[in-house]
Amino acid sequence: MASSFKQALPADELRRRVLALAQPADQALKDTLTSHVPYIEQVSGYIIFSGGKRLRPVLYLLAAAAAGGQGQPRQAAIFEYLHAATLLHDDVVDEAGLRRGRPAARTQYGNDAVILVGDFLFSKSYSLAAEVADHRFVNALTDCTTLMAEGQVLELLFTGDYELAEADYRRVIQAKTAVLIAASCQMGAIFAGADDALIESMYTYGMELGMAFQMVDDALDYVGTEHEFGKPVGHDLAEGKITLPFIFARENCGPSQRGRLLELAAAAPTDPAAQAEAKEMVRKAGGVEHTMAQAKAHALAAQEALAALIPPQGPGEHLETLLALAPYVVERRS
Amino acid sequence: MASSFKQALPADELRRRVLALAQPADQALKDTLTSHVPYIEQVSGYIIFSGGKRLRPVLYLLAAAAAGGQGQPRQAAIFEYLHAATLLHDDVVDEAGLRRGRPAARTQYGNDAVILVGDFLFSKSYSLAAEVADHRFVNALTDCTTLMAEGQVLELLFTGDYELAEADYRRVIQAKTAVLIAASCQMGAIFAGADDALIESMYTYGMELGMAFQMVDDALDYVGTEHEFGKPVGHDLAEGKITLPFIFARENCGPSQRGRLLELAAAAPTDPAAQAEAKEMVRKAGGVEHTMAQAKAHALAAQEALAALIPPQGPGEHLETLLALAPYVVERRS
Repeated sequence: MASSFKQALPADELRRRVLALAQPADQALKDTLTSHVPYIEQVSGYIIFSGGKRLRPVLYLLAAAAAGGQGQPRQAAIFEYLHAATLLHDDVVDEAGLRRGRPAARTQYGNDAVILVGDFLFSKSYSLAAEVADHRFVNALTDCTTLMAEGQVLELLFTGDYELAEADYRRVIQAKTAVLIAASCQMGAIFAGADDALIESMYTYGMELGMAFQMVDDALDYVGTEHEFGKPVGHDLAEGKITLPFIFARENCGPSQRGRLLELAAAAPTDPAAQAEAKEMVRKAGGVEHTMAQAKAHALAAQEALAALIPPQGPGEHLETLLALAPYVVERRS
Repeated sequence: MASSFKQALPADELRRRVLALAQPADQALKDTLTSHVPYIEQVSGYIIFSGGKRLRPVLYLLAAAAAGGQGQPRQAAIFEYLHAATLLHDDVVDEAGLRRGRPAARTQYGNDAVILVGDFLFSKSYSLAAEVADHRFVNALTDCTTLMAEGQVLELLFTGDYELAEADYRRVIQAKTAVLIAASCQMGAIFAGADDALIESMYTYGMELGMAFQMVDDALDYVGTEHEFGKPVGHDLAEGKITLPFIFARENCGPSQRGRLLELAAAAPTDPAAQAEAKEMVRKAGGVEHTMAQAKAHALAAQEALAALIPPQGPGEHLETLLALAPYVVERRS
């Protein structure tokens, strides 16, 4: 596997290209987020138009274009709706107070409304998917949402399991995060009428990118400040969520420290001092660097998945943008 | 509109025919309720295999057969999964303690697991729908689930609105109950390859049957005992849910009694004596009889929707069963 990134774009140029696709996706969200019940539009709008990066719609449009087609922003919206539905239900499950730096929808509208509006957004995403005649399109979505639901149940079951194995951690983040990003890329290729090999390459790219994305999130949770990250720092440990930085530290800090770390983790949900000490131990044991290195490995694998698609004269604009998103995901700080 | 039912079957014969279709549907549920996460199978199984009548799968299979096709039990399962997903999320929203005469899943497994397993069952229903090549099939399902989600939000918004208009009540029960029953019939006809007119007739039949079904439920809530009904009596008023028996009583009991009834309804969620007195007033004002009469009118309209499909020599077995379900729905007592 390559050890350095193949393609990079100046940050400004990458941002310009992403925004050029995020804007029509945003417009499609405004156009399609309609309901007979105005309150649903209000609650949905609160989560949908709260400054998300539109990463998934942008990936869908890029994958379609890189596969030689033209993705419709209308279908790009599917992935933002699904993402929002997941966030709404997740926030209820996590009893989250903040989301993207402001009060979570559930604290504004109540758990009940948020559960049901999540269901509405879930249906909305299927409505838009069903407009596409290729039956592979809806099939890919059903595989995705089934795996996502399984991943979220797994995450719930593993909450408070301080001995969580790395393999189980990977299973959770694959299902809860990477699968939707993979489906965004895969379904872009399907929409473009690509052949199975190209669809598979896009799926793998998205899966690896998604793994990298979540690992960076999990690393930042141990270092970021609330200001730059838009949610409370140390969120994961406070919720009993065991992620790779912790797992690496636990496995590499020696037997006596290991015992102490487990003790602190168990205390973290109710004791901010224990939480701070656990985070410090994880940082000192190199948990953050290890996780970032693993994230980089996945981002490199994402690029690798697209390698065979690059023609001799070099990638076209859209493939180039996909390649450039891999280092971006690892280097972002929010 | 006809004022008496067109077709009746002896209760034993109707039961035999329904069971003959409920059994393969049940088997399909057992065969398809699989997950990589055993815990999901456990929570899903708790709600799915808790003695539901399989009304929706049976209607799907009957509609397919009456439309000249052969429905697959695998797709019949869609409607039970969707129904179960709705019940799971509803129970969280309603803070329900009992469901079908035993502890609601949320009291056994917690709200969090129940929300996420509901999402899983939702996905499962779409997975099974996506196996059908006819794009009208998934489209019908998306229309259904979108309306259902809207109906549940409406019901939430109207909770505690003791002045609820009858038109709004009808809008809620149509979306939360009748639409799924309508989709079961409609999609059976689509699966059978029926033409648009036949599909529409089946949809109307299911919609009217569903309205009748929910109205009977709402009437029984004012008269049934916990023993025969499997959930606490007076559930609706205790939850601030205003249904037709109450609306009729409120509009027909005279101004002074009206004020008293509204007072009692407002007190009902926390005061069992107020609840009992309100129920008594509703019964005395004829709210139950009126609701049952309205239910009967819808059941007659359900039969009417199928009238044009009856050949001169009389309905075949499946159409006959559909017709016979209309009086059954009105006459059932649980």
